[in-house]
Amino acid sequence: MGEFSFIQWIRKRQKRRKDVILGIGDDCAILDVSADKLCLITTDMLVDGTHFDLKQCAIRDAGRKAIACSISDVAAMGCQPTVAVISICFPEHTTEKFAGELYKGIWDIADKYNIEIVGGDIISGRSPFCINVAMLGRDDGLKPVRRSGAKAGDMILVTGALGGSILGKHLHFEPRLKEALTLNKNFPIHAMIDISDGLTADLNHILEESGVGAILYEDQIPFSDAAVELSRKTGHTPLYHALSDGEDYELLMTVSKAQAKRVLSSGLLTEVKVSCIGEIVKGRGIRMKSPGGTIRRIKPRGYEHLKQ
Amino acid sequence: MGEFSFIQWIRKRQKRRKDVILGIGDDCAILDVSADKLCLITTDMLVDGTHFDLKQCAIRDAGRKAIACSISDVAAMGCQPTVAVISICFPEHTTEKFAGELYKGIWDIADKYNIEIVGGDIISGRSPFCINVAMLGRDDGLKPVRRSGAKAGDMILVTGALGGSILGKHLHFEPRLKEALTLNKNFPIHAMIDISDGLTADLNHILEESGVGAILYEDQIPFSDAAVELSRKTGHTPLYHALSDGEDYELLMTVSKAQAKRVLSSGLLTEVKVSCIGEIVKGRGIRMKSPGGTIRRIKPRGYEHLKQ
Repeated sequence: MGEFSFIQWIRKRQKRRKDVILGIGDDCAILDVSADKLCLITTDMLVDGTHFDLKQCAIRDAGRKAIACSISDVAAMGCQPTVAVISICFPEHTTEKFAGELYKGIWDIADKYNIEIVGGDIISGRSPFCINVAMLGRDDGLKPVRRSGAKAGDMILVTGALGGSILGKHLHFEPRLKEALTLNKNFPIHAMIDISDGLTADLNHILEESGVGAILYEDQIPFSDAAVELSRKTGHTPLYHALSDGEDYELLMTVSKAQAKRVLSSGLLTEVKVSCIGEIVKGRGIRMKSPGGTIRRIKPRGYEHLKQ
Repeated sequence: MGEFSFIQWIRKRQKRRKDVILGIGDDCAILDVSADKLCLITTDMLVDGTHFDLKQCAIRDAGRKAIACSISDVAAMGCQPTVAVISICFPEHTTEKFAGELYKGIWDIADKYNIEIVGGDIISGRSPFCINVAMLGRDDGLKPVRRSGAKAGDMILVTGALGGSILGKHLHFEPRLKEALTLNKNFPIHAMIDISDGLTADLNHILEESGVGAILYEDQIPFSDAAVELSRKTGHTPLYHALSDGEDYELLMTVSKAQAKRVLSSGLLTEVKVSCIGEIVKGRGIRMKSPGGTIRRIKPRGYEHLKQ
């Protein structure tokens, strides 16, 4: 397989969107943005040995994850992803089958969410497999939800159950795009983020951007079956894993108290549970409230690259 | 240095554009595209050991090159680059100084061309240093120039002198953005590409997309001093290097015969020489015409990833 024949193969199989004027095969792709007001852009790089381990997972799953991570980022703004460009560094001696399986994983998710791959870069190097997805989104008249809008008095909501994603969810999660769009269309969401670094680490991003603090309700944090399973191996509690583990790709948001009640009782989110796990307060940092009512300060804990 | 403090450092130093509503620090960046008709997007991945060798060059030069390559791609469409998102995989034990020097190189070029870095992803892995730049551009009322517009009877023009870029130009080239915009504003350019894979390889991309062939004039190919210098080491001719070497990042274009005369005599491109190196013909493939008038078929030759 050569670079150019591989690109031709991708090009032929790629489904097309109406707003893409020129897709794969030139120096740039060209999109019609005349009807758009806002254009969103995000980028995510995943490398073998850090974000997945190709000794233990299929390359198709890695391709799936790369696209799903970027969809989750656009979803975290409450907006609709549209197109992506994908750069791939293949290790030397990569086979055609390996490259083909990768794209199967990419298309599994891209097709499902109507995202066109409009371009890319295929390189090879003496390095582990590495993939970068840069994705665009459009507002479609919605207001993008930032991290910076949390207000004292807001309630903190989270979708799904958290922790232990390393046991499988980090590869097979469904990006919460449908839920994010439903939420942004129907409720004034003050701040939102997807949980990639970990619940407390990502909550801390919201707090720092918004200049506020938070109290979490210890008995309200939804931990997953995987968190329980993992806790048996690590000796940590399931709560510890729910607070610290990364890559759950659930939505974490803050809304006013009145809106929180509306969200929880609306019945609009049918496929995923939403939990109220705490409140936004004046001040800084995160505190934890036990069922007995005692409050202690906790440190944001989660995955951070480059930390030594 | 941690990931989050490094991102804060980048964020504080980044110059801002007016059309960027939300830059670094959220799940996505947000751009105002209400005045744009078209949005262009390109992505380029560079990895240590393939696109540069950090044992022999400064990380600042690698940062410089990463941005310049993407600018060259937007320039090759005859359009204006605007913003970029940058993903970086740092090897383990990367120092703060190394990361800072990288961004100096990025800003050297980004600031010069008024490109805002609106987001990114910082990761670490057991892998060589790797950087991906995804860049957006806008048409500003100009028609983007594709690879597919070459017509039989067109003349083939190229900027600058070619070959031997491995001796230094591949790191220090100036993207031909000013020239590309001047050309697209003043002349009907039929097809254009930047020379990254090599003159004959990139010409072949135009030919395949346009469904035409080409005749090159052997004595009109402008080879650089570096091509001459390199030829002394390799035993190949300077012409060989001008035809085959990649990463010159000059502009290769086709225009009608009448327009070619206008381009060559216009005096609009003051900083770089433009040469007429051949013509587009019916049929397929590339042929070479010697000064004596004999014509022989040549194979496109240049850098291709994954070729075994």
